[in-house]
Amino acid sequence: MSEFRQNPISKHWVLIAPARNKRPDEYRTVSVMRDEPEYDPKCVFCPGNEQMNPELLRIPDNKNWEIRIIPNKFSALEHTAVYRHKHFYISHSGDGDHEVIITRKHNEPVALQSIATVELTLKTFVERINALSRHPELAYVQIFHNHGKEAGASIIHPHYQLIATPIVPPHIHDEIMGCYHYYQKNHSCIYCDIIKEELEVKDRVVYESEHFVVLSAYASRKPFETWILPKKHGARYEDISADELKHLSFVLKVTLGQLYTKLSDPPVNFYIHNMPLKSNGSLAHEESSFHWHLTIFPRITKWAGFEYATGIPINPIPPEVTAKFLKGDN
Amino acid sequence: MSEFRQNPISKHWVLIAPARNKRPDEYRTVSVMRDEPEYDPKCVFCPGNEQMNPELLRIPDNKNWEIRIIPNKFSALEHTAVYRHKHFYISHSGDGDHEVIITRKHNEPVALQSIATVELTLKTFVERINALSRHPELAYVQIFHNHGKEAGASIIHPHYQLIATPIVPPHIHDEIMGCYHYYQKNHSCIYCDIIKEELEVKDRVVYESEHFVVLSAYASRKPFETWILPKKHGARYEDISADELKHLSFVLKVTLGQLYTKLSDPPVNFYIHNMPLKSNGSLAHEESSFHWHLTIFPRITKWAGFEYATGIPINPIPPEVTAKFLKGDN
Repeated sequence: MSEFRQNPISKHWVLIAPARNKRPDEYRTVSVMRDEPEYDPKCVFCPGNEQMNPELLRIPDNKNWEIRIIPNKFSALEHTAVYRHKHFYISHSGDGDHEVIITRKHNEPVALQSIATVELTLKTFVERINALSRHPELAYVQIFHNHGKEAGASIIHPHYQLIATPIVPPHIHDEIMGCYHYYQKNHSCIYCDIIKEELEVKDRVVYESEHFVVLSAYASRKPFETWILPKKHGARYEDISADELKHLSFVLKVTLGQLYTKLSDPPVNFYIHNMPLKSNGSLAHEESSFHWHLTIFPRITKWAGFEYATGIPINPIPPEVTAKFLKGDN
Repeated sequence: MSEFRQNPISKHWVLIAPARNKRPDEYRTVSVMRDEPEYDPKCVFCPGNEQMNPELLRIPDNKNWEIRIIPNKFSALEHTAVYRHKHFYISHSGDGDHEVIITRKHNEPVALQSIATVELTLKTFVERINALSRHPELAYVQIFHNHGKEAGASIIHPHYQLIATPIVPPHIHDEIMGCYHYYQKNHSCIYCDIIKEELEVKDRVVYESEHFVVLSAYASRKPFETWILPKKHGARYEDISADELKHLSFVLKVTLGQLYTKLSDPPVNFYIHNMPLKSNGSLAHEESSFHWHLTIFPRITKWAGFEYATGIPINPIPPEVTAKFLKGDN
């Protein structure tokens, strides 16, 4: 039976329509990394080709770097700053920052990286957020990962992107306000309440560790949309403890590993939803009710005219089915 | 220079980032219809195979039908009706209607159809909306077209889809409220004001007829997002006059034809944004300020992690460039 479901935070609707259902394993794809070497001398992100791109940072700071940060060659943003209102058409200059965070091995997607590499990367994100919060013209830092052509990755070599924007993006704004309004009404955090409810019901829980819960999202916009929620209430990813960072590396790698194995390396995006930069002060009043989190968003179905017209994604597999598939031995 | 632009109706932001720019003609694709026959005996939508699907309607009602309407075999919606609130998780049964509207010729995309065929189809939409408005459980009728695999079309044979929903979709709600708030403040319709401004500035105008204006949208979410706006203010597509219907058939076909020719038949969605059903009465108070329209949404770039994380699409070509390309002789 098909069902409209509402995301309890953003209030966005999705349509879960299993009438179109296929079994989860029918969504298996073909790994993009299949025939790739560990180092590709023609790859602009590979060790040995460092001179092909300017560099912001490398960790460790020698030729055996594990992580390298470069400015995005085709930056979506530039450093300028004018607000322009023209009649009812409002625009804002594309001021900001666009970085690429590269891990060393050409053919090692995050799903197959060592926990140590994932941990080093996640720690680097904390450092970049703290560094960028010194720029008063920036409002928000979005960190995201594209893996596979269908997920928008134009270069195979594993890398993350960081885009710092001069405005608070609408999805972030909507979620923060959703948390705030829920808190005003219920005197509790919606994400904390979701964790409690999900651990009780169990249907959508993929994995639980001491510090994190991994869920197939109740109102999943695509099959296998997966949320990683920290159990400790807190608005800012950059305030993560060393112990939580270790756990997050583990649950992120394991969850991506399950998707990799069970769906043969599907195209996937993942991203962190965080508070606007401390220095910016946007929504400071709402900060105490927000709860940062990480979203994994596999790209194995396509949105069509209905989705773009209405804003209601049609998802052919209920999250209860994907959770069972991801945690099961099948 | 890159620029954030706000859609003046929905208030959604996009990032126009020509730093990633390619020339518009570099987005040329390969026609999906290239090697298709006029009739395919194996196609479930082709004349001769009518018995393969149940039928709601054919026009004309004989074996030489031009248009045939069938229920969608993999309907995203079903006829049931229960509201369920479970704690903070809100859902609504997937009650509604899902139809497929098929035109006769297997290998004739809308861009190459006769004006008469397009007109007959657009007239059929009016009849379906009026017929469905007799169902009190329905709130909104979304008519849309998917062309090409990348645009979500699973069957090559040209067809439209109609999904009638029991809720007013968020994009429709946001646009109607955007129009309403603008009207309250300015005592005029935002779409009427956009038409006036665009015809004066000319930069984004692709085509103008007696009854319609075709524009590259100011805050285009993807390259070549094109709006067809009726000059006559009115909230309901189903109130279109016979003369306007003729003009719309012409401008729709010509605009799709330009995209077809200049980009080699790109994957494309298009859809109508309309008022909720009269019978439903949702937003009746806001009706007088709304202005129906048709949106053409080519699918030649992919959204990635940034778009899904933030809700801000990155569009690599400014609409001023696409308008010039579409109307020019290049």
